[in-house]
Amino acid sequence: MEAGDIQGEMLNKTLVVSAPGKVILHGEHAVVHGKAALAVALNLRTFLRMSPRDDGKIFLQLPNIGVKLWWDLVQLQPLLDAFPADRTELKPPTPEQLARLKEFAGTADGPGEIHDVATVAFLYLYLSIAAKSGVLPSVELLVWSELPTGAGLGSSAAYSVCLAAALLSECSVVGYPLGEGQSLARWTEEELDVINKWAFQGEQVIHGNPSGVDNAVGTWGGALRYQSGKITPLKRVPTLRILLTNTKVPRSTKALVAGVREKLLKFPAIMEPVLISIDAISRECEGVLEAMADDSSQGHYSVLEELVDINQHHLDVIGVGHPALDRVCQATAALGLHSKLTGAGGGGCAITLLRPGPPPI
Amino acid sequence: MEAGDIQGEMLNKTLVVSAPGKVILHGEHAVVHGKAALAVALNLRTFLRMSPRDDGKIFLQLPNIGVKLWWDLVQLQPLLDAFPADRTELKPPTPEQLARLKEFAGTADGPGEIHDVATVAFLYLYLSIAAKSGVLPSVELLVWSELPTGAGLGSSAAYSVCLAAALLSECSVVGYPLGEGQSLARWTEEELDVINKWAFQGEQVIHGNPSGVDNAVGTWGGALRYQSGKITPLKRVPTLRILLTNTKVPRSTKALVAGVREKLLKFPAIMEPVLISIDAISRECEGVLEAMADDSSQGHYSVLEELVDINQHHLDVIGVGHPALDRVCQATAALGLHSKLTGAGGGGCAITLLRPGPPPI
Repeated sequence: MEAGDIQGEMLNKTLVVSAPGKVILHGEHAVVHGKAALAVALNLRTFLRMSPRDDGKIFLQLPNIGVKLWWDLVQLQPLLDAFPADRTELKPPTPEQLARLKEFAGTADGPGEIHDVATVAFLYLYLSIAAKSGVLPSVELLVWSELPTGAGLGSSAAYSVCLAAALLSECSVVGYPLGEGQSLARWTEEELDVINKWAFQGEQVIHGNPSGVDNAVGTWGGALRYQSGKITPLKRVPTLRILLTNTKVPRSTKALVAGVREKLLKFPAIMEPVLISIDAISRECEGVLEAMADDSSQGHYSVLEELVDINQHHLDVIGVGHPALDRVCQATAALGLHSKLTGAGGGGCAITLLRPGPPPI
Repeated sequence: MEAGDIQGEMLNKTLVVSAPGKVILHGEHAVVHGKAALAVALNLRTFLRMSPRDDGKIFLQLPNIGVKLWWDLVQLQPLLDAFPADRTELKPPTPEQLARLKEFAGTADGPGEIHDVATVAFLYLYLSIAAKSGVLPSVELLVWSELPTGAGLGSSAAYSVCLAAALLSECSVVGYPLGEGQSLARWTEEELDVINKWAFQGEQVIHGNPSGVDNAVGTWGGALRYQSGKITPLKRVPTLRILLTNTKVPRSTKALVAGVREKLLKFPAIMEPVLISIDAISRECEGVLEAMADDSSQGHYSVLEELVDINQHHLDVIGVGHPALDRVCQATAALGLHSKLTGAGGGGCAITLLRPGPPPI
C-alpha cells in the first residue's frame, strides 16, 4: 500500500490519469451494520489515456475486459434529453436514465456483464458531464488496470475516478491538472471533491448502492475511516507492505451480506457483540497506524498482526470465511505471517501483513 | 455424556461409590470474568471401594497414579488437634492444616506432584470428617478412574466426591445409601448436599481456588450452569453423544487464565464483547438443551453445532487455542462434525458433538 492519489499527466495534448485501488483493512460487513471500517489505497492502479480527435467520433477501449467501442457524436446527441444541464446538485442515476443508456448500448436484455456495465457507466458520466458544458467532446479513451475486477479491490471505483477526472477536465468543469511539458501534477482540493462526487455517480451506475469508500480512496489515496456514510481521512498513515492473495473463488457479495444479516437475526445476543468487537478492532488499528507515523518501532506490528488474526476469526464467526481463505491463513502462519480476508469474503482476496525488511523465508 | 449421579453400592460390608467426570460445553475462561458456563456430566467415572478393617490401620490405594500407602491410626491421632470437631460451618482448609499434613505425608518439599496432592486431600477429608464423629475408622480404600488426570475432565472432583461420600457414610454423617443385599441406591437430596460441600473441601486442597462446578457435577450429574459462584442445575437435559479427544498437549491452566486476563487489559474494547458473546452462547445452548428434552428433532443439533464452531473461534481470539486443537477441529470438520476445546485450552481435550445414529464414516 502506498498513499495513492489520483494523478494527471499531459503529453502532446494527451491526458494520462491514474487512480489507485483499495483494500479494506478492517470492518468489512460490520460497516453494513453501522460500524467503522478502515480502507487503504493500494499501489495497484488504473490508468486512463485521453487523446483529442477531430472526426466527431468518440472511442472507448477497455483492454482488460475486452471493450472496444466507438460512436458518432450525432448518435449520442439525442440522449442528452435525459441529462438536464441545469443540475446544481448531483442526484443518483435514475432508472429511466439507465434504461435509456442500456437500450442505446444494446445491453438492455443482458445479464449485466462487466463490459456492459462499464460501457453504461462511461456513457452516463460522458453525457452527464457534457450536458453541463453543452459540448460533446470528440476524444478517444483507453483505460487499463493493474487491478483484477470483481475481487473487492476497488477496480470499478478507480475506473470511475479516472473517467470523471478526464471528462471533467475535458469539459473544463475542473482545470487541466497542468500545462503541456510540465511533469506530474495534481488537482486542487476543491477539484478533487468534484471529481470524487462524479466518480461516486459512476459507482452508483455500476453497483446500485455503493458506500462511497472506494471512490474516496481512489481520489484521495491514503487511508480513511468509513462509518454510517461518513468518510474521515486518516491524517498520517505509514506505508504498509501488504501481500494480496486472490483465491479466485467466486462469490456473491449480496448473498454473503444477506447471510450475515440472517445470522444476526438468528443469534442477536451472540453476533451483535462480535460486530462491536470488529468496530473496536478498526479503531484500535487506526490508533496504531497514526502512532506508527511518529514511531516506526516493530512493536506496533505485533499489535497490527494480532488485530488481523482476531478479525479473521470474527469474520469466520459471522459466516464469511472459506476453506481457500483458511489455507492462505495457514500457509502464511507457517511463515510467521498474519492474514485475513478482505472485502466480502467467501473467497475473493486475502491480505497478509508484511513487516519492513527482507521476506521471512 | 449421561445424566450421572454419585452412586453407592454395598457388597459384603464393602461400599462401592462412583461419581462422574465432567466437560465444559461452553463458557470456559469467560466464567472467570463473571460470565455463565455450562458443564455436563460424562459417562466416564471414578470408582471407590471401601472395606472395613479391624487392625487399627488405614490403607489408601490409587492405582491410576501409583499411590499405595497405609498408616497406623495411632500415627494419625495427634493430627486431629488441627481439626476442631465443633465446626458447624465448613471453612476452607487453612495453610497451617495443609502444612501439617504435607509434613506428615513427607511431601512438604515436593513440587506438588499429583500423588502427593491426592494423598494430602485424602488425609484432609479423613481427619476433618473423623473429627466430627470422634472416631478414626479403620478402613481400606481403593480409588480408580476411567478419567485421565489433569485433562480438565473433573477427575480430582470425582475423587473428592467419592472420598467424601464414603468417609461421611463410614462416620455416619450421612446414611449408608442402602442395606446389605440391596442393589444400587442413592443418597437423599440433603445428604448429597453435605457430600458436595465436603467434596468442595477436597477440591480446595487440590486446586486452591476451584469454582465448585466440578464437584457439583460429580455429585448431582446432569448439566448445570455456573455463574459468579451460583450453580443452577438444568432441569431437563437430553443425553448427548460427545467424542472426547485428549491432545495430550500439556499446558498450565494458570498461565492460560493469566494470558486471557492480559489480553482483556490490552484490548478491553475488543475482548469484552467476545466474553459477552460467549455468555450468550452458553445461554443459547442452555435453551436449546431444554427444548431438546421435548423435541428430539435434528434441527436442534445444527444450532448446537453452530454454537460449538462460534465458541471455538472465540476461544482462539482470547488466546487459548493450540495447533493440536486446530487439527482436531479440521479432522472432524472433514467428516461434517463440529469440535471445540473444553476447559483451559492450550492443548488438553477437545469435544466433538455427535448426532444420534450411526457414525458419519
